[in-house]
Amino acid sequence: MTSVDQEKHKLESLENYRDSIDRLDAILVFTLAERFKITEKVGKLKATVNLPPSDPTRENRQLERLEKLSLEAGLDPIFAKEFLKFIISEVIRHHKKFK
Amino acid sequence: MTSVDQEKHKLESLENYRDSIDRLDAILVFTLAERFKITEKVGKLKATVNLPPSDPTRENRQLERLEKLSLEAGLDPIFAKEFLKFIISEVIRHHKKFK
Repeated sequence: MTSVDQEKHKLESLENYRDSIDRLDAILVFTLAERFKITEKVGKLKATVNLPPSDPTRENRQLERLEKLSLEAGLDPIFAKEFLKFIISEVIRHHKKFK
Repeated sequence: MTSVDQEKHKLESLENYRDSIDRLDAILVFTLAERFKITEKVGKLKATVNLPPSDPTRENRQLERLEKLSLEAGLDPIFAKEFLKFIISEVIRHHKKFK
């Protein structure tokens, strides 16, 4: 391959990778949407049984489980934890609306 | 149902919802891991063709696409954008290692 061909090949690879990323982002968006639908139900349920929006014991168990899953998946566990904390804080913000 | 039965029923529902959330979190972790594997390849490729780690045009297109997907999925588009920004900043941080 000439260096122009190589460059072209690399840019095609880049396009293919970006298409994969876009498909994975769609999975993430739809999975997050499903997760929020369920945490919304949890929030409403918690309000009727007078449970607080935040549950540190549950959250610690989630973080521990996520750490194990991340190691299994080859994902940086620190990133995974930050990610879950980000989602949980958003969920709690939503739950507080039901109190 | 007595009020004790109702309470029991609600707590069972809460457990079921939490099991669903845990399953969705596993999808998120494995999808994110796959996404990072690909962005790692993109980072290495960009370094060989001398492209900068960050690409604002691509990022803006991703944000627009994500907004549309979020609306379709019933996900708060503001949350979706914050989420993508959070992931992209993490990816750029990783890419800079290859420069």
